[in-house]
Amino acid sequence: MPSNPRHDVLFEPISIGPKVARNRFWQPPQCNGAGTESPGFNAQHRGMKAEGGFGVVFTELIDIAPECACDPYVLPDLWDDDDVLNLRLATDAIHAGGALAGAELGYYKVTGGNPMSRKAAFGVTQTNSDWVTVQHGASHKQFEAEDVDEIVRIHADAVRRSIAAGYDLVSLQMAHAATIAIRSLMRYYNKRTDEYGGSFENRIRLTRQILTGMREAADGKVALGCRFHVNTLDFPFGLGPDGITREEGYATLEALDDLVDFWDLTVGGGAWGEDAGSSRTHRENHQAEYIRGVKDHTTKPVANVGRFTNPDTMVDAIRSNQCDFIAMARPSISDPFLPKKIDEGRLEDIRECIGCNICASTWERGVRIVCTQNATAGEEFRRGWHPELFTRATNSEQSVLVVGAGPAGMECARVLGERGMANVHLVDAGDDLGGSLRWISKLPGRGEWGRVIDYRKIQLGKLKNVQVILKTTMTAQDVLEYGADLVVIATGSSWDAEGVSWYSQSPLPLTDEARARVLTPEDIMVKEVTPGQRVVLFDADNYYMGHGLAEKLAKAGHSVTMVTESDTIASFTAFTLEHPRVLADLRNAGVEMIVRAEVSEVGDGRMTLAHGINGEERVLDFDSLVVVSQRWSNNALYQELRRMPDALASNEVSGLYLIGDAEAPALIADAVFSGHRLAREIDSPNPAEPLPFIRERRVVGRGDEAYKLPAR
Amino acid sequence: MPSNPRHDVLFEPISIGPKVARNRFWQPPQCNGAGTESPGFNAQHRGMKAEGGFGVVFTELIDIAPECACDPYVLPDLWDDDDVLNLRLATDAIHAGGALAGAELGYYKVTGGNPMSRKAAFGVTQTNSDWVTVQHGASHKQFEAEDVDEIVRIHADAVRRSIAAGYDLVSLQMAHAATIAIRSLMRYYNKRTDEYGGSFENRIRLTRQILTGMREAADGKVALGCRFHVNTLDFPFGLGPDGITREEGYATLEALDDLVDFWDLTVGGGAWGEDAGSSRTHRENHQAEYIRGVKDHTTKPVANVGRFTNPDTMVDAIRSNQCDFIAMARPSISDPFLPKKIDEGRLEDIRECIGCNICASTWERGVRIVCTQNATAGEEFRRGWHPELFTRATNSEQSVLVVGAGPAGMECARVLGERGMANVHLVDAGDDLGGSLRWISKLPGRGEWGRVIDYRKIQLGKLKNVQVILKTTMTAQDVLEYGADLVVIATGSSWDAEGVSWYSQSPLPLTDEARARVLTPEDIMVKEVTPGQRVVLFDADNYYMGHGLAEKLAKAGHSVTMVTESDTIASFTAFTLEHPRVLADLRNAGVEMIVRAEVSEVGDGRMTLAHGINGEERVLDFDSLVVVSQRWSNNALYQELRRMPDALASNEVSGLYLIGDAEAPALIADAVFSGHRLAREIDSPNPAEPLPFIRERRVVGRGDEAYKLPAR
Repeated sequence: MPSNPRHDVLFEPISIGPKVARNRFWQPPQCNGAGTESPGFNAQHRGMKAEGGFGVVFTELIDIAPECACDPYVLPDLWDDDDVLNLRLATDAIHAGGALAGAELGYYKVTGGNPMSRKAAFGVTQTNSDWVTVQHGASHKQFEAEDVDEIVRIHADAVRRSIAAGYDLVSLQMAHAATIAIRSLMRYYNKRTDEYGGSFENRIRLTRQILTGMREAADGKVALGCRFHVNTLDFPFGLGPDGITREEGYATLEALDDLVDFWDLTVGGGAWGEDAGSSRTHRENHQAEYIRGVKDHTTKPVANVGRFTNPDTMVDAIRSNQCDFIAMARPSISDPFLPKKIDEGRLEDIRECIGCNICASTWERGVRIVCTQNATAGEEFRRGWHPELFTRATNSEQSVLVVGAGPAGMECARVLGERGMANVHLVDAGDDLGGSLRWISKLPGRGEWGRVIDYRKIQLGKLKNVQVILKTTMTAQDVLEYGADLVVIATGSSWDAEGVSWYSQSPLPLTDEARARVLTPEDIMVKEVTPGQRVVLFDADNYYMGHGLAEKLAKAGHSVTMVTESDTIASFTAFTLEHPRVLADLRNAGVEMIVRAEVSEVGDGRMTLAHGINGEERVLDFDSLVVVSQRWSNNALYQELRRMPDALASNEVSGLYLIGDAEAPALIADAVFSGHRLAREIDSPNPAEPLPFIRERRVVGRGDEAYKLPAR
Repeated sequence: MPSNPRHDVLFEPISIGPKVARNRFWQPPQCNGAGTESPGFNAQHRGMKAEGGFGVVFTELIDIAPECACDPYVLPDLWDDDDVLNLRLATDAIHAGGALAGAELGYYKVTGGNPMSRKAAFGVTQTNSDWVTVQHGASHKQFEAEDVDEIVRIHADAVRRSIAAGYDLVSLQMAHAATIAIRSLMRYYNKRTDEYGGSFENRIRLTRQILTGMREAADGKVALGCRFHVNTLDFPFGLGPDGITREEGYATLEALDDLVDFWDLTVGGGAWGEDAGSSRTHRENHQAEYIRGVKDHTTKPVANVGRFTNPDTMVDAIRSNQCDFIAMARPSISDPFLPKKIDEGRLEDIRECIGCNICASTWERGVRIVCTQNATAGEEFRRGWHPELFTRATNSEQSVLVVGAGPAGMECARVLGERGMANVHLVDAGDDLGGSLRWISKLPGRGEWGRVIDYRKIQLGKLKNVQVILKTTMTAQDVLEYGADLVVIATGSSWDAEGVSWYSQSPLPLTDEARARVLTPEDIMVKEVTPGQRVVLFDADNYYMGHGLAEKLAKAGHSVTMVTESDTIASFTAFTLEHPRVLADLRNAGVEMIVRAEVSEVGDGRMTLAHGINGEERVLDFDSLVVVSQRWSNNALYQELRRMPDALASNEVSGLYLIGDAEAPALIADAVFSGHRLAREIDSPNPAEPLPFIRERRVVGRGDEAYKLPAR
């Protein structure tokens, strides 16, 4: 029982059909890029959450038939006995941690062009399902009444395979408008006129048939449920009146309640940005207004997501009868040990999700999961990293100087501290920890990103072997004379002022007069320079910095025109699911956007460009030109030290390392990883060079022995 | 020696450093989506080309260090001994076919965000390398003089591993501006001011150091060469004066000639659309004008691509001293047996590449290779398909009626014929073979797509057991009474006239007056309806049909406005590498393009929409509205027959199958595949259901036995 009795309710066991969850912590289906191709990765990533105290741990949406393959996107498959073997590894790991294992099954919409199986997939109509499908040149075959038996059989077979794979819970995916089971229910997709279209009764027919088949196959051995978007929200970010309205959501719960043992609820449809809303726009428990009241329409336990990280909010959700389980996807990636830390009353140790949605971006990009806060996410198996356990470094008698206390430096010092290094000094020129993140988190809507600093500040404070030294600028001489055995340079990066872009690989054609009007992000955010009234913002970065500054300046009364060489503004935010709201916010703030621009001249207060798909000429007058193009590593200190091998030796500095943006500017998640990685391997033969990791793939002539880490 | 002595020269053995190629047929590095993850796939795909007569078979660009991983894109890796095991399978297969095996090695630019290894990669500068990198939030670390030893070592290690993997030829990748070796040479990327930047001598320094290290590692055991884009072309489709100009190309050949044994040449830089130019814009041997003359600047054998399919063009290229080897990537995918067919004088059997670049699109989409002409490409290992060999069907005593002679029907009939079915009747309502491809190939620039028809027409003509019956429309009754044992329906698809799109899942809001002005692609291309002067073309398909019709109509004097809901016009053509030229051609033809459109009203000759990233209102007046949105399967005949099980039984029709667009409208490659697949499995227990294929991935607890097809 938790040390704070107010949190007791979170640790009550709850029955789900024939199973009992040990508590109310629920990891809903969550993608991680493992698929069934990387069974060890999947198993350890899931098992970690069970070890961390979750009562229920799902894998992720499993596509149940070869025609549902969605490459280049990554989902696990459940088509054959080998898939069962691979998923069994995950359920074993989940069980070893004391949790129930859940499988979410779906007959997935056509998402890629399906070069994997090249078999046509059923759809509720033949329509291209979405932009992604169009991009792959594919469409569905409309199911006919004669096809229903086959569709039901595919679902039932998947239930039987799930049981063989050791799952306890099985849910039918009816979320994100992603499967035939949910699309057939939604007027938005279902335009049929036969007995499977039209009235609610007709539209829910297929879903009931599928669930009935699944229930039969479940045979009381697993709990059967639905993951269901109970409300697909209004326009413009939802699907409007032809989606799942509040009324249809309730009606669906009632119509299917006899067939299920639980409901795993979410909101938003089509895209998933209103479900996994980023912290820029969506607060903790943001789905409450749509979820509250559902329990009047079901007799079964309800789980509900909403980027919960605060146990008090969780308790409120339970006490208010909003839900029975607290479902956490992103927070469980950021901190798999969240339940245990609540249990033990170590709330300050919770590594809270910052809602940046880099994790979501990895699915959208078809790659392995990455987390800004938790550098061990996805590394549990292949590098053997545990988020909470650290081995004592074999060279722990050494002292380490870390120069720069941004995300990379803080994380490196923290992990070095955890690994018992004799003495870690984290030195920064600023008057507080955090580096560039201190001001980045002041951009509109990015406040929660400050949790990257907060968590590390608290942890560093707990580590007796780590000392933080602020307001101290280090020269090479200072470093040499510091007395440290090892030196880590984490001095970050600075924004370019010349407009060098990926597009031309060249600076903007700035005259001297133009150059005098240039401001960088740091000029505005750190030096607090106020730009002139008319601002042109040139964005070749296309992530959060450009649109954040534009919004900030527009709201401060400037007239702002954003110019980008790309086809759209803030393109990376499409991967983080933020794009529709970013564009809407920019429009609402009165920012004019100019895409596909080719800048030909930038003179004194005037930019000439061709733009748009038709290449129209345009002249923009500006008082200030804000340039968001490219970051350059602040690596001068490192390069200087590196070129003094004799001085390093004579000062007994035996290791000099470069991490984070100072090595190569990238995502904040990459900076944190870089610091973590170095500290984890500080006692390896060559810490600058990452140790090999396990690569899960077929290796000719080898079996399971190919997937083991050497003893370290 | 070939049956036509004019082609003798193509079959001369040629020395390459310490190796001898048996002839002049060269498969240059070519991506197929196998990576080192699917060694069986790679081996059989490459081995097939050796078996088909190629003298040299490369695998594809191999990334030589973990930091070069480019997921979600797929390249083979050469980082460790397991990679050597996996690539060995390919060299063994290539050797078994009598060819030399070539490895192209590259220290790849940062292309994805590298979540695979999460290690920072060296670049010539720190700049984001391209749009793809920006899209993944990553950048390089600029190499310093102190880093060169490490860079050279990485290349040398890769050469040693290539030798261990059994390769005969190793080339350094210096093409597509893809690697540090080529980027450091190019002013376009190299803005350095140290001894590695500025003068040609400085810029080529790193490349020479790398090649010197590789040469040492090669130790005379393999031939060492360069794959080099000898000319990166002028603006707007090339890189202009800061790229590799003709002069710098020659200078590079001369400067590195002492270090290499061969040159594998190409043109174009940055993107690869000017190298692997589609047939819309690039003819056979289109690189000749840039390649002719290079042999004055090198003493080493030269290979040169250019989508060669005609042996006479090949002979001319050799005789004119343009090159020594005929390099064929796409043509070798389309027909791995091209050399053998020339040798045997079976020119009419050559399955000529149509230059559609669907193969290239699969790399760009991060998926397995697909070929329109050769349905067996990528299926050699996992389904056991050989492009030229067919087993006699176990039910070959049966007769088959194939209704519809489009790509799916033709291919199905051809393969059924090859498999010895007693009697195959291919029936079509039209007056010639080809289905929709007959008119699709009349779109501007799509003439070579007609080769899909030509090849099959010739092959069908050779098959005595296949009869083609034209100008015959089949009703259900006709089919029942036809006397066939098996019936295959391949009746294609028709374009929607309502503007149903992926975006809204709904038709355009057409009034009746507007509907009277709607024309579909068939109206224009088949019925030859002449639209009114002012044409609005609504494109929700975003591949070739919309832009093809727009260009055709604009050139015929119509005023054409293209409207799409997407961020850009003809987005799929970005994958086929055609996008820059498509847009330029549309601009040149005077087509106005409107992107990101939300159509609110379509009345009598008037469309109202909001468009662009700023959502501006616009009213368009039109005489005709051409709608390119969605295709619907022509499956009425199939559905009708399917609902007459008794009639089928009493007429002794034991199998009824649906293939191609009639099942689900997709790419032409998918239609061909669909017909091929059914014919290959016509004697399986349930031909409607594809047989399982080998899935190469780790399977827990299993070794190589997991990657074998059952005896069939």
